[in-house]
Order: sequence, then C-alpha cells, then structure tokens
Amino acid sequence: MGLGKDYSGQNCTFARTLEILGERWTLLVIRDAFYGVRRFGDFLAHLDAPRAVLADRLETLVNAGVLTKQRYQDSPPRDEYVLTDAGTELWPVLFQLTSWGNRHLDSPQSLRIFRHVGCGGVLAGFVACDVCGRTVTPADTQVEPGPDTKFLRTDRVSVALREPHRLLQPLQLA
Amino acid sequence: MGLGKDYSGQNCTFARTLEILGERWTLLVIRDAFYGVRRFGDFLAHLDAPRAVLADRLETLVNAGVLTKQRYQDSPPRDEYVLTDAGTELWPVLFQLTSWGNRHLDSPQSLRIFRHVGCGGVLAGFVACDVCGRTVTPADTQVEPGPDTKFLRTDRVSVALREPHRLLQPLQLA
Repeated sequence: MGLGKDYSGQNCTFARTLEILGERWTLLVIRDAFYGVRRFGDFLAHLDAPRAVLADRLETLVNAGVLTKQRYQDSPPRDEYVLTDAGTELWPVLFQLTSWGNRHLDSPQSLRIFRHVGCGGVLAGFVACDVCGRTVTPADTQVEPGPDTKFLRTDRVSVALREPHRLLQPLQLA
Repeated sequence: MGLGKDYSGQNCTFARTLEILGERWTLLVIRDAFYGVRRFGDFLAHLDAPRAVLADRLETLVNAGVLTKQRYQDSPPRDEYVLTDAGTELWPVLFQLTSWGNRHLDSPQSLRIFRHVGCGGVLAGFVACDVCGRTVTPADTQVEPGPDTKFLRTDRVSVALREPHRLLQPLQLA
C-alpha cells in the first residue's frame, strides 16, 4: 500500500501507540502471548503469518517493551517471548476488542469465553466479573472454548486451547 | 507489503474484529469521530491521510455498522459520518489504547485528558471516574488538552480541540 508504518503528522499518544500496536499481525501476536504462546515456532504455527513478518513483529514488540526474551536453551541458543508488565497491561485493550466483536460482528465466532477463576463468573464489559463484580486481571482469567465452538484448526496451539487455560500461563504443548 | 487485509486463517472474533478495525488509519478515524469530527474534509484535514485511503476507511466503517451517513445538505448532496451505537461502544477500546500509551510510551505526549463531566474527575483504568468511582460513558466525557500540551498542528480540528470539548458532540469549526 505504500503507507509506511508511522503517523508522523499525528502527534498524539494514540497514534504513537498505534505505531507500535497497529501493524498487521501485531495484536494477534499479543493475543497469543496472553494465551500462553512463547516460542517462535508456536506463534508461527498458530498464526500462519509469514515468517519474516512474525520475526519483525516480535522484534518490534521486544524493542517497545511489550515482550521480553527469556533464554530457555543454551545450545543452540533459543529464547521465549514473554509479556512484560507493560505488555500485560494491554489486556483491557484486547478484551474490549474481542468483547466488541462478540457484540457487533454479523456472525461472531465466540471461540473463547473469559471466566473468573475462583467464582466462575463470565467476564463482561470493563473486564469485571458478572458474579462478584470485581475487576479481574488476566492472571485470574481462564480461557475456554465457547459452547458452539467448531474446532477448525489442528495445529498444536489450537489443540491445546481446546481445554480451559489460565491466561499468561505457558501452554502445555505436545 | 502484500499482506492483504484479512486473516482468513484466523477463525476467531478477535481477528475478524481486526479485519474491520485493524487497517491503517481506521482507529484514528474512529478517534476523530469520538472527538466530534463528522465531515470528510474535516477528517482529511486532521489526519493527513491520503484522500483515497480515508474514503476507503469511511466506507468500510459504514458497511461494518460503526459509522452511519447522515445527509446534512441536499444541493449538492453531502453526508456526515456519525458513530452508530455499535461504534460508540468502541470507546473502551480507544480509551484503553490511549491509556496504555500514556503509561508505557517512552515519551508520552499527553495531549488529552479525559474527565468526567459533572464531578470533574479524571478518567483512569477501566473508563471509570477517579472521584465518584462510576463508569463513565463517552457522552459524559470531556476532552481537553493536557497541561504541557504543545499545539503543533494548526488545522481547524486541532485548533477547535484546544478548548475542552464533550465527546460525541460536533466540533464547532470555523
């Protein structure tokens, strides 16, 4: 499209935030990080993004302080990508986008329900619990498939997410 | 980039939401709609987006039910773009993105403060008021420049927004 990636004429925090988060695939990478995906090959398997694009997005997010690299293997050296505290604070953004899509898409595919660990209430509105009314952090949130979910994808991340899973916790992958 | 605009392999509400909202400029168009911008030329003046791109984004948002066209002049026919109820429900997304940027960008440019009309509290966290604690709708939200704002832009929308302005209300433009 030749549109570049910055909004150099837009001197507002919102535009600058979009320079980091608004690129194609970026928010899907972050979504996956909340789901517990950490390794390059797992992101690649789940997203079907071109390899070079995914590498670029991960590097951008590390440089922006949204993700951090953690060495998990020394020989050969391999790193995992983990949300920083700043990255974790993106949860309300992702939840609100999904929540909006659930309410307003013509045919929403509610593949995920977000539920409050402990009391079991479903999250709604402002990332609060509809049973106890408390604000719920992603660490106290469980992701599980909705009742009418059709499992279309068979990669290992999709398969792992067929079971209830607590956000931020690493997925148990085959 | 040749990446296309859809995420055909991603069968989740979040990805489908991004197909509508994730294109370059789109969220900035919506941001402006919250600020009260309604006319094509005003969006164009404020955003510096290429004319064809802006036209495409507005059309996409109308088709998606985020904006609606309202005729304001018959001869020649001219329409304004106004947020629908569904579009208005995007407020938490935009607020959370901005709020995140304010907290986590290296040098945030806090050009806007969002304040609760009536009690005067500043909005924080989950779009609630830090004085009365209530959830605040955009209709009850005032936008005003922050204390250290440098007014870099001189187009008429930027100028109008130098004064406190209630969200969703049409800007008074020269």
